[in-house]
Amino acid sequence: MNEIKSVFENVRKLNPLVHCITNYVTANDCANIILSCGASPIMADDPMEVAEITAASDSLVINIGTINAGKIEAMIMAGRTANRLNIPVILDPVGAGISKLRKGSVERLLKEVKFSVIRGNASEIKAMTLNTKSTSGVDVQAQDKIENNNLEEIISIAKGLSKKTSSVIAISGEVDIVVDKDRVSLIRNGHPYMSKITGTGCMLTSVIGAFCGANKDFIMEGVVTAIALMGICGEEAYKKISNRNEGVGSFKTYLLDNMSLIDTLPIKEVMKVEIK
Amino acid sequence: MNEIKSVFENVRKLNPLVHCITNYVTANDCANIILSCGASPIMADDPMEVAEITAASDSLVINIGTINAGKIEAMIMAGRTANRLNIPVILDPVGAGISKLRKGSVERLLKEVKFSVIRGNASEIKAMTLNTKSTSGVDVQAQDKIENNNLEEIISIAKGLSKKTSSVIAISGEVDIVVDKDRVSLIRNGHPYMSKITGTGCMLTSVIGAFCGANKDFIMEGVVTAIALMGICGEEAYKKISNRNEGVGSFKTYLLDNMSLIDTLPIKEVMKVEIK
Amino acid sequence: MNEIKSVFENVRKLNPLVHCITNYVTANDCANIILSCGASPIMADDPMEVAEITAASDSLVINIGTINAGKIEAMIMAGRTANRLNIPVILDPVGAGISKLRKGSVERLLKEVKFSVIRGNASEIKAMTLNTKSTSGVDVQAQDKIENNNLEEIISIAKGLSKKTSSVIAISGEVDIVVDKDRVSLIRNGHPYMSKITGTGCMLTSVIGAFCGANKDFIMEGVVTAIALMGICGEEAYKKISNRNEGVGSFKTYLLDNMSLIDTLPIKEVMKVEIK
Repeated sequence: MNEIKSVFENVRKLNPLVHCITNYVTANDCANIILSCGASPIMADDPMEVAEITAASDSLVINIGTINAGKIEAMIMAGRTANRLNIPVILDPVGAGISKLRKGSVERLLKEVKFSVIRGNASEIKAMTLNTKSTSGVDVQAQDKIENNNLEEIISIAKGLSKKTSSVIAISGEVDIVVDKDRVSLIRNGHPYMSKITGTGCMLTSVIGAFCGANKDFIMEGVVTAIALMGICGEEAYKKISNRNEGVGSFKTYLLDNMSLIDTLPIKEVMKVEIK
Repeated sequence: MNEIKSVFENVRKLNPLVHCITNYVTANDCANIILSCGASPIMADDPMEVAEITAASDSLVINIGTINAGKIEAMIMAGRTANRLNIPVILDPVGAGISKLRKGSVERLLKEVKFSVIRGNASEIKAMTLNTKSTSGVDVQAQDKIENNNLEEIISIAKGLSKKTSSVIAISGEVDIVVDKDRVSLIRNGHPYMSKITGTGCMLTSVIGAFCGANKDFIMEGVVTAIALMGICGEEAYKKISNRNEGVGSFKTYLLDNMSLIDTLPIKEVMKVEIK
Repeated sequence: MNEIKSVFENVRKLNPLVHCITNYVTANDCANIILSCGASPIMADDPMEVAEITAASDSLVINIGTINAGKIEAMIMAGRTANRLNIPVILDPVGAGISKLRKGSVERLLKEVKFSVIRGNASEIKAMTLNTKSTSGVDVQAQDKIENNNLEEIISIAKGLSKKTSSVIAISGEVDIVVDKDRVSLIRNGHPYMSKITGTGCMLTSVIGAFCGANKDFIMEGVVTAIALMGICGEEAYKKISNRNEGVGSFKTYLLDNMSLIDTLPIKEVMKVEIK
C-alpha cells in the first residue's frame, strides 16, 4: 500500500513528460488524463521529430489505433531512441487482431523495440500470441472476456508473452491481470460502464506511461497502481452518474475529474489488488 | 411507432460494428455516440487495412471532413468492399461545396460506390446536385435553410438526388427531410442549439450508420428513427442547459448522455415524424 | 471598455469564418470554442484545398502542434493566400523549441507568411527569438514563467519579435503580455488551473482568430479582448469546480460553457487590462 502511495507521489513530484504516438480518436482524452494525474503529455508523430522528442521525454506511449505506414516508422524510430536512453516504452496494441496491417505492425514493433509494458484487452493479447483474428473491432470479443473460469488460461497467455518479450503484460477486463516474469497481480477495480465510452483503454495506457515515467525502477508497481486508480476513478464516476441519472457524456467528464481529484477518493478502502 | 421501437431494439440486440472513415475533428464524439446508442465504432482509414475492416463490419460511414488524397483511396476501397458484401454505406458530404477537392471527391465516390444513405445539410446536398458553391464553411448557408416556403423545393432536390443515386437522402435542418424513391418523411424534432456545437451532423450520420447496420432491410426506417431520436436528445439537452444556465460544453455532454439514456426519455410523446 | 464591447459584438454580428490548420489533439475543442464565441470554424489541411478555403474565410489560424511535412506546405499556401487577400493570419508556435522540425517550420513560416498575430507561451516565444531549446514539451518551462521580476525582460523580447515580424505578439502566462510596435498591454485575468487541461493555448489562439476575423482594423484590440475574455471564462470555470469539488473534465466543460454565456458574466467588474 505504501508502495502505491509513493508510486503516485512520484508522478506529482517529478511531473514526467509522456511522449504519445497515438490515434486521433482519443488523443485529446489521453492528453487530459495525463495532465489529470500530474504528468505532461506531448503528442508528436512525424518521423522527422519523434526521436528528438522521445529523447527529451520520461516515457513513450505507442498506440496503434488509426495506424498508417508513416506512423509505424515514427514509432520504431522513437522506440529505438527510448531503448537506447533507457526510457520506458509502453505499447497499446489497439485492435491487434482486426487487420493484417495491425498484426504486421505489432510484429515489427516487437522485433525492433523492447517494451517495458504491453497493455491490451484479452482479444488483443491473444491475437499477439495465438495469432487469432478478432471480429469485434477494438473491443474485446465475448468469448475472450476474463471471467473466473478462464482466468488461469489468460494468466498463462500473459506469462507466455511476458517471457517472450521481457515486458510487463497487462490485460484489461472485469479482472485486470498484470504479470512479469515472476509475479502475477490481479486488480478487481473498475466498472463495466468504462467500456461504454471510447478510449478508456487508451487513457489507461497513457496513465501507465505517466506512472512508469516517474517510476522507472518500479515498472510492475507503476502498472498495477495506474490500473487500480483508473478503475477506482471509473467506479466513482459510475456512482455519480447513477445518482444523477446521467449517461455516457457525463461519465467521461467525471472519469477525468476523478483522476485529478484522486486525493479525495477513498483509495485505501476500495482498492482491490491481489498479488499471487 | 412500433417500427421505430423495433429499429432501435435491433441496435441494442445486434450491437453492430460501424466502420468510420472520418475526420479528426469529431471522431471522438462520433465514436462515443455510436457507443451511446448500443453499437460499436471502429475508426480506421489506412488503405492497407480498410477493406479488411469493412468486411468485418455491419456498416460503413464515410465522412469527408478533413479529407485528403490518401483518405479518398481508402474510402473507395472500403466502399467497394461494402457494396460487394451488401453492407450499408452512408455518406456525409461535409462541406461538399467549399472546395474543388471536396466536390471532386464526392463525384468520384458517387461514381465508384453505391450509397445506402447520403446525409447532409441543404447547402451540401445542393452542391452535390446543382453544382452550387458554398461560402459558409461546413455550416448551411442562410439562404439554404429549410423553412416552410422552400420545403417543397428542397424535397424536390432530394428526390432528384435519390433517383440519380438510388440512395435514401436525408437533409438536416429545422425540418429534417428523408426521401427514397417512393416516400417522403419529415421530422420536426431537434433544436437550433444543436448547430452551436461542432459535429452534430457527423454524429447523426454515425448514428444512422449504427441504425442501418442493425436494420439492413429497413434503411429508410433506420434513417428516420436515428434522426428523430437524435433530435429528441438535442431537445432534452437544450431543456437541461436552459434550466441550469449552462452552455455549449454542457450541451455536448448531455447530448451524449441522452442517447445512452434514450429509454428514459418520453419518445412517444415528443416524436414528430410525418410520412407524406 | 467600449472598444472591448464593440470588438466582441462584431464577432456575434459578422459571424466570421475561421479557417484552422491545426493539430488533431485539440481540433475539436478549438472548433467548439470558435462556435461558442459566435464565429464559425472550418478545419482543413490538405494542400489541394487550403488556398480555396482560406480565400472564403475571414481569418486563418496556423497551429504547429502535430505538425508534419504535408501540413507545412498547406500552411504556407494558405498563409500566402491570406496575405494576398488581406485576411488576418494568426500563428500558434506550439512547442517551437522542442524539435528541429518545429523550429525550422516556424522559421520557414515567418519567411513566407506575414502574420497579424503570434501567440505562444514564453518558452515558445523565446525559442523563436533567442534560439533556445525547450525541454518541457508544449508547456512553458519553469524558468520562463512570467513573474514580476522578469516581466520587463519578456516585454522586451516580445517587442523585439514584434519589430522583426510586424506582428502583434501575445505571450500567455500568469500575466498575459500583448505588444505591437507602439503599445504594450498587460492582462491579469485567467487562472493557473487553465494549464491543467490540454489545449487552452490552442483554444485561445482560435478565439483570437475569431476576434481578428471580425475586427480586421483593430487587431491589437481583438487580441487583448480575446485574452481577457478567455481568462475570465477560466476564472469563472475554476470558481464553479471549486464550489462543486470537481476536476479537469468539468473545468473544460465550463470553460466552453462560459464563452457561450459571456453576456451573463460580470466582465466589466473583473476584467484586468492595463495599457502601458
